[in-house]
Amino acid sequence: MRLISYRAGDRHGVGAMVDDERFVALHRLFPDLPPSLKEILEQGALSVKRIAEAIKGNEGDLRLDQVHLDPVIPQPHATWALALNFPMHIEETGLTTSKDYPQIFQRMPISIVGHREPLWCPNPAIAKTYDYEGELAVIIGKPGRHIPVGAALSHVAGYACYNEGSVREFQGHNRQFGLGKNFERSGSFGPWMLTADEFGDPKKHRVITRLNGVEKQNESFEKMLFSVEQVIHYLSAGYTLQPGDVIAMGTPGALRNPPGYVPGPNDSPRISGRTHMKPGDVVEVEITGLGVLGNPVIADPTEL
Amino acid sequence: MRLISYRAGDRHGVGAMVDDERFVALHRLFPDLPPSLKEILEQGALSVKRIAEAIKGNEGDLRLDQVHLDPVIPQPHATWALALNFPMHIEETGLTTSKDYPQIFQRMPISIVGHREPLWCPNPAIAKTYDYEGELAVIIGKPGRHIPVGAALSHVAGYACYNEGSVREFQGHNRQFGLGKNFERSGSFGPWMLTADEFGDPKKHRVITRLNGVEKQNESFEKMLFSVEQVIHYLSAGYTLQPGDVIAMGTPGALRNPPGYVPGPNDSPRISGRTHMKPGDVVEVEITGLGVLGNPVIADPTEL
Repeated sequence: MRLISYRAGDRHGVGAMVDDERFVALHRLFPDLPPSLKEILEQGALSVKRIAEAIKGNEGDLRLDQVHLDPVIPQPHATWALALNFPMHIEETGLTTSKDYPQIFQRMPISIVGHREPLWCPNPAIAKTYDYEGELAVIIGKPGRHIPVGAALSHVAGYACYNEGSVREFQGHNRQFGLGKNFERSGSFGPWMLTADEFGDPKKHRVITRLNGVEKQNESFEKMLFSVEQVIHYLSAGYTLQPGDVIAMGTPGALRNPPGYVPGPNDSPRISGRTHMKPGDVVEVEITGLGVLGNPVIADPTEL
Repeated sequence: MRLISYRAGDRHGVGAMVDDERFVALHRLFPDLPPSLKEILEQGALSVKRIAEAIKGNEGDLRLDQVHLDPVIPQPHATWALALNFPMHIEETGLTTSKDYPQIFQRMPISIVGHREPLWCPNPAIAKTYDYEGELAVIIGKPGRHIPVGAALSHVAGYACYNEGSVREFQGHNRQFGLGKNFERSGSFGPWMLTADEFGDPKKHRVITRLNGVEKQNESFEKMLFSVEQVIHYLSAGYTLQPGDVIAMGTPGALRNPPGYVPGPNDSPRISGRTHMKPGDVVEVEITGLGVLGNPVIADPTEL
């Protein structure tokens, strides 16, 4: 099942997709369900199962183009993101990272938008290198502490695509990434949560990132240094994972430019195949068997 | 005015202190006010002023020892924390940090408790070096983007004490602090928010941290590398600061042990004057003119 968080006018709701475009507005079928996916997950797996059974054969009552999509979980208690979790990305950045422990940081809700909503490219007076990062997002369903690696996937409610958009100058301002990973509307999360039963083993899937239709990243999740299970185990050593917590599993390296490629003005001078995003771009993060998260990029409209 | 967030049974509420122990439960005076301090701040400065005027002469209807205190803002949209913002702390750690940009990371709500609530010392099988960090917490009132340094303090609703408790082994696992700054119930935030009009200039105040009554930190906020104004200006370059956002301004260095001091088993072998916290300890963070945030330390009760 594919679940979305959406906004129609002032009302925020949760929907269940019946095909790639149509969905059932859950408040119509279940007036007793809470209005947010995080709260539905807090009610436990039975609520999700009940939705899946009730929408069988339903043709849907709304289309995605009739609403605005919120991030899959609009206000998670915590969003963790991994740095340097793919060998090709470590190599291209020239950075070092521990082989024993994941490198993790956090993002705040205002930095993330939903599918088809505009991303904000920073004003060039603030920063000039704004980059996509296609990633797998893991959404926690069942709370847990001290979770063994072997039981970790049973705590996952589902998966989504994540564009962990990053502002490189700010990321490099000091030793912690801080604001560079948290610019307003710099990342996206969607289009939906595909439940874990239908997604299956993350290692059998790939992430593909496209900028204006051109493939920029394409890598198997088999290449991750730390698996979903290992990261859940690691985090649960420190706190009780909460329903709706999000883990963005890190981005792979760039697909290198072919020999003879002439770099454009937005291409990274340092990393072959990386192109910074600019207003007017369209960026897509696809995960095989899951879907495509797409966003237009516009200039940050706030006045300096 | 001093505002608290508290819990009485299942009910969460906001209170206004009338002396150091008694408070007015705001839902009794203002049935129309929202039940959280974050939402009251979202309504703007007029709501806060209205409360201040209404409680004049009120003797209070509850005492702190009749309720549980929540963190001042229990579920902030974002909590920022500064690393290495005092020269003595930089020197004692031997670490480097940019002189041009603050070093910032984030904390999640489950890592923070209120005044008098127990902090959880990690199980020694997980980590052995759990440290206090006495800090000034800044609470944003008025939203804003691209805030000039000169206007920054007008965006502050108030101030509180913050114990930015840290688990050093995890902080050092990799390049980002990640989980080491986010263990469950490892930090605290309270006892109340003192409104900015009464606190005045942060630089005129000091932070004092005591472990079991012994002074371990005592430093003026004049010594901060990056001031409250500068950090607000910096963050607002990236996003629209939200009412209830929290900034923990970084911790000063340790008061060095006197010559001839014989280190105990919990003393840091690396940093003179630093003593790791253990179950049974009582830790206090005082800010002059503001109040004292005190917490007992217990062993993390979760089973491995």
